Amino acid sequence: MISEINLGTPCDMHVHLREGQMCDLVTPTVRDGGISVAYVMPNLQPPVTTIDRVVDYKKRIQELAPNTTFLMSFYLSKDLTPELIHEAAREKAIRGVKCYPAGVTTNSAAGVDPNDFTAFYPVFKAMEEENLVLNIHGERPSVNDGETGDDIHVLNAEESFLPALRRLHTDFPRLKIILEHCTTEAAIKAVEDINKDVEDPRDIRVAATITAHHLYLTIDDWAGNPINFCKPVAKLPRDKRALIGAAVSGKPYFFFGSDSAPHPLESKSKHKGVCAGVFSQSLAIPYIAQIFEQQDALDKLKDFVSTFPLQFYELPQHELRSQDEVIVYRKPQVIPETITDGKGLQIAPFKAGEKVNWSVKWVAK
Amino acid sequence: MISEINLGTPCDMHVHLREGQMCDLVTPTVRDGGISVAYVMPNLQPPVTTIDRVVDYKKRIQELAPNTTFLMSFYLSKDLTPELIHEAAREKAIRGVKCYPAGVTTNSAAGVDPNDFTAFYPVFKAMEEENLVLNIHGERPSVNDGETGDDIHVLNAEESFLPALRRLHTDFPRLKIILEHCTTEAAIKAVEDINKDVEDPRDIRVAATITAHHLYLTIDDWAGNPINFCKPVAKLPRDKRALIGAAVSGKPYFFFGSDSAPHPLESKSKHKGVCAGVFSQSLAIPYIAQIFEQQDALDKLKDFVSTFPLQFYELPQHELRSQDEVIVYRKPQVIPETITDGKGLQIAPFKAGEKVNWSVKWVAK
Repeated sequence: MISEINLGTPCDMHVHLREGQMCDLVTPTVRDGGISVAYVMPNLQPPVTTIDRVVDYKKRIQELAPNTTFLMSFYLSKDLTPELIHEAAREKAIRGVKCYPAGVTTNSAAGVDPNDFTAFYPVFKAMEEENLVLNIHGERPSVNDGETGDDIHVLNAEESFLPALRRLHTDFPRLKIILEHCTTEAAIKAVEDINKDVEDPRDIRVAATITAHHLYLTIDDWAGNPINFCKPVAKLPRDKRALIGAAVSGKPYFFFGSDSAPHPLESKSKHKGVCAGVFSQSLAIPYIAQIFEQQDALDKLKDFVSTFPLQFYELPQHELRSQDEVIVYRKPQVIPETITDGKGLQIAPFKAGEKVNWSVKWVAK
Repeated sequence: MISEINLGTPCDMHVHLREGQMCDLVTPTVRDGGISVAYVMPNLQPPVTTIDRVVDYKKRIQELAPNTTFLMSFYLSKDLTPELIHEAAREKAIRGVKCYPAGVTTNSAAGVDPNDFTAFYPVFKAMEEENLVLNIHGERPSVNDGETGDDIHVLNAEESFLPALRRLHTDFPRLKIILEHCTTEAAIKAVEDINKDVEDPRDIRVAATITAHHLYLTIDDWAGNPINFCKPVAKLPRDKRALIGAAVSGKPYFFFGSDSAPHPLESKSKHKGVCAGVFSQSLAIPYIAQIFEQQDALDKLKDFVSTFPLQFYELPQHELRSQDEVIVYRKPQVIPETITDGKGLQIAPFKAGEKVNWSVKWVAK
């Protein structure tokens, strides 16, 4: 029985750190959860679309977590120009650009129309030239079309987006694209299909991140449990099985991005207008280790959380803020009902009150 | 433009009136919502399975609403015997028996295994002989079956139950059965198919009730809005369209049952373990009228809420507690955010804070 694993420098390639009091509370939990490298989402209010803001934001979170390596991103909107992309790349201010379809999740109102990306093609061309990553929230907004029956709703929003993903890859074959927090068997199959002829991992251009919570949840788990409500919503049992299969597959285009998305407890405990998001940052690696253990695939864990994301993002070890390594080891712990800063802010972590079998510790390399 | 309609004596053939403080608050709202006849569900704690309890319960609610006609029911469980069914029918204590699959909704733990009804066949035979109605919550409990992929989840739970409905009808062809609060296109089609050769409405043996809220909601509406979370959950847009189509179809085997299911506001405003149920009692007829207006089908409204349910339940006018009639008329009103008894109990009604175009008033016949 495996009792511990050295995971090297694990990455969480999709984190929400927010601002203000929430940022102060959650940013240090990146390291608590066993994560060395975090890709930081730009959906603040207003969205992060300038070099100054990204530099300021990085400075703030770096102060809160000096040993964590933060990769920063812009929010795709009409404020971005090819010139700005080139400048931001030259200054190494960002590693990628996040694309939100308008209206599908928290702070996405400034996002784009997923039915027509062509307005952004000059930006994508600049990103392709600079080897920046396009991080896509791959959902189409809901439509109730009684005429044609061509409805979009939270269950098929991701699958309906996949043709747009393929079109983007066709139009920008060298652009690195990530389908973020994918949730469906259809998405897994699409990303596998796009990569079917790729032999060298360095040639991967379309990857997908998978969260911790989508490896646990199905629709039954968020029906009546707002703590588990997130966008994209967790889907059906066969989708969950496909995600688990992809995570443990050893395929280098599937890797970890938690989409940890904290909200104050009172924003999750409402009868109307619950905020979408699951907070999984503080126990990111233990949640994942538990699934890999259940699948008898602990030997694949380091690939999923360290090797593959570092490879896709081409992040050399010497650029990390710390060379400390993470050991995940068998030590059960009860997940607290809430995490608080002692100043009135409370977050309910994923699986609050339940048990995980694993803990993490840091060791010098 | 139609400005008012006399609906006669409208029926709501599926109501939850609860006990204690909640019962005191909601029972008078049956009449407020424009309902003359209410079929009362027996899922109290413990479930209603004796004549004494049903008589006591009816006495209590009758005191609270002297002009409302209440039809009472037993809770199908191992406590019921054919002898008890015959006795309850003789004493006119009940009009039917409600069948809950174990574990699918509020207070259903004492329910039955929907994969095997044969243990209850002697009870069904007695019911058939007494012309009692079998009211079925038609869902199979969730199963995650990774081996066969034969999963049951909240989205397919009703469709998965339909073969059991057909089997019951085949085995008891004279038993009156209602598929309660049906939510899917599949259920509508199944009930239509069962009735395809019925020419005289008096020969209908399988009917379906349709709620007000399922004519408005889809999965997108309860994702993140626990006020709209109920069992069976609201499904996809095409299912909603099928329900609306059935409601306005003029087919006598589709009629109104609100499944109004009140819970204290604090039980709907939680991050875990939200109670399933939508409270629509206090505005039952206005909610329905609004949908029929949108469908340009106000001429079908009286059939759906009065004629068809009275016909199926074979309820003669002289057995009603009151001959007062309901006028639904065009007068917009804002739905209150909460309904309260002034003693600490609060309920959030369906569409709280929104507007409906219709109001009701009572007139002597």
